[in-house]
Amino acid sequence: MPLDSSFASSLQLSSRMAGLRSSAIRDLLTLTARPDVISLAGGLPATELVPRERITQAAQRALADPRSVQYGETSGWAPLREVVAARESVKVGRRIDPAEVVVTHGSQQALSLLAQVLLDPGDTVVVEEPGYTGALQVFRAAQAALAPVALDSDGMDTDALERALREGLRPKLVHTVSNFHNPRGVVLSASRRAHLANLADRYGFWIVEDDPYGELWFDAPAPAPVAVHSDRVLRLSSGSKTLAPALRIGWLHGDRRVCEAVELLKQGADLCGSSLTQQIATELLDDTAWLDAHLATVRGAYAARAGALVDALDAAFGDRISHTTVHGGMFCWIDFTGGVDTTALLETAVGRGVAYVPGSAFGVASTHPHAARLCFATYDAAVLAEGVERLRAAYEAHR
Amino acid sequence: MPLDSSFASSLQLSSRMAGLRSSAIRDLLTLTARPDVISLAGGLPATELVPRERITQAAQRALADPRSVQYGETSGWAPLREVVAARESVKVGRRIDPAEVVVTHGSQQALSLLAQVLLDPGDTVVVEEPGYTGALQVFRAAQAALAPVALDSDGMDTDALERALREGLRPKLVHTVSNFHNPRGVVLSASRRAHLANLADRYGFWIVEDDPYGELWFDAPAPAPVAVHSDRVLRLSSGSKTLAPALRIGWLHGDRRVCEAVELLKQGADLCGSSLTQQIATELLDDTAWLDAHLATVRGAYAARAGALVDALDAAFGDRISHTTVHGGMFCWIDFTGGVDTTALLETAVGRGVAYVPGSAFGVASTHPHAARLCFATYDAAVLAEGVERLRAAYEAHR
Repeated sequence: MPLDSSFASSLQLSSRMAGLRSSAIRDLLTLTARPDVISLAGGLPATELVPRERITQAAQRALADPRSVQYGETSGWAPLREVVAARESVKVGRRIDPAEVVVTHGSQQALSLLAQVLLDPGDTVVVEEPGYTGALQVFRAAQAALAPVALDSDGMDTDALERALREGLRPKLVHTVSNFHNPRGVVLSASRRAHLANLADRYGFWIVEDDPYGELWFDAPAPAPVAVHSDRVLRLSSGSKTLAPALRIGWLHGDRRVCEAVELLKQGADLCGSSLTQQIATELLDDTAWLDAHLATVRGAYAARAGALVDALDAAFGDRISHTTVHGGMFCWIDFTGGVDTTALLETAVGRGVAYVPGSAFGVASTHPHAARLCFATYDAAVLAEGVERLRAAYEAHR
Repeated sequence: MPLDSSFASSLQLSSRMAGLRSSAIRDLLTLTARPDVISLAGGLPATELVPRERITQAAQRALADPRSVQYGETSGWAPLREVVAARESVKVGRRIDPAEVVVTHGSQQALSLLAQVLLDPGDTVVVEEPGYTGALQVFRAAQAALAPVALDSDGMDTDALERALREGLRPKLVHTVSNFHNPRGVVLSASRRAHLANLADRYGFWIVEDDPYGELWFDAPAPAPVAVHSDRVLRLSSGSKTLAPALRIGWLHGDRRVCEAVELLKQGADLCGSSLTQQIATELLDDTAWLDAHLATVRGAYAARAGALVDALDAAFGDRISHTTVHGGMFCWIDFTGGVDTTALLETAVGRGVAYVPGSAFGVASTHPHAARLCFATYDAAVLAEGVERLRAAYEAHR
């Protein structure tokens, strides 16, 4: 007989679990799994543009090396850290040492480890409003106090951030998706990058520059990274959107001591990444002629898809929706100007065979009740047009 | 100029980082990387016994499926969860539902996520003395209070645990490496398994049964898992020691609600595992005829290596060392009966071209000053004999 049955019967979960909402990301992925639904909800790269043949070749070459099946270094396969350091050096305009790079299991792991390295419960974290759900989840699990700062068409409103700092806000870190924002699609302007970096230096906070989409520009690259302007920037990127999600290759670079702390925590988190997928990624990232051509193909396809989605939306809805101009990435953020509740509309939409993510999923202080995030990357123009047609039908039925 | 230069200049790491020792595991892996050193320190499976050709075939087949390169479900590739559930059902003698299985990035990730799901700072965790360094690191990062319980040749001394419980110890969880213990090599006896499970039911704690080595038995399988005796057991295992470390496939099964909490936290930790390596692992685990033959080969080779190591130790040291009888796994634990300090001896040993892990690396309340862990899995008999010869030379030089 139990000593204390109430103690014995409870799950006794940690206090951090109380702060976690039920699985927004899983729910999204679940929606995408139904074959009859055109899911504009997921953030899935176009499967047919993932270079599967090239990956197959690289896998065969990697598997000829016995090291590809063995445990690897916690900080990542050394040649991969070198190629990442070389690519990031070009981006930030100074030499990044491979010792300042940690390869992680997608950039999501870098974000999660950074939160654990830097945050104690109750610490303040500035997030974008609306913000990336995976970041909100990580900071909630860290029991941080979230301080949202609004976005506009030039990205995070750094003037609003400065006002909050002057009024006493003291964040431990500021998280920004600087390029082709998830979910808003916008790009942080060059002047705001410099401003944000200046604020970090003046007020002594870390910036986590989360950049999985920077390579997916349509007409011109985004401005130079925030990391150009300050050494208080911890920069995250990923091969998930450019090579393949299943390689699970992300990385972080920045202050060497923070990288060492991340590596120390990663030992306990999962010992090391996969030597096999890291060797595959090394070959692909190091083959710059192939990679440049591949990225050009993806950029062209995504630009055409974004255009097709926006054209279809304009034709179907006219001024009943507004949307930001899309310059890259994978997402278009729309607002129903007539005020329909997108959370309520979703059930009707799924019934009509189309899914999206309602604005509320990205909200911190606001619920963005009339907004929605549509992903244009996964399908070709014809399917996108059919998805918009289903959305229009759902909208008409819902009113 | 910074607002507060001392604030700005500090790294502001979280309090959990203060509790972490500098990277014991990394230091071990670093030792193994020097080609002139015979490293009995690492816990590396024999590279030449990893089924690289079979993995290459499975990788080619997996990559013919477009889903192999895309994002996957957080809880793991459904067919992998099914095959794991089926295998674990046989082990624990009742049907495990795939919904009670979460596939993780090695069993280390399962351990880390479980610690985050279950532990608040200050919670008490019972660990084995000596204990697995990767577990100690996870529990220290969780800022748990470690309560060590001694091991003998029958594994964790559950009578000692019961005395401590009677005296008021109230652990949130008890961690045990039940089969072919790391570092001690011992097996938890059948009666102690039942006793431990009974204590969990009576005192309301979770048992984490960490079992990466259970398949590596030499003469006979270990007793039925602790999970047979109680539903308060969260059972962890892995393909790292049987298939390949680089697949990074581990798993956890147990209480469905705990699995759901782990999955929720894993979304933030890394979104999902690699669809590619999970599909490869599915094929290998599902091909039972091949797998049985493969495991028989590995068991035979490891048994021969363990025998070769012990014979070499007996010949070189006689009664100057004692060692536990090895029945499986990858490790032999030795004690220098004359009292040499194995931490001090290590530098001499590495100078002579052999490495091991001194007992102090596994200590909680004790430093195990005269003990060492030797891994017999990585090398063949001739190299093991040469390693022991170098160890003997170091021992003579050190005295």
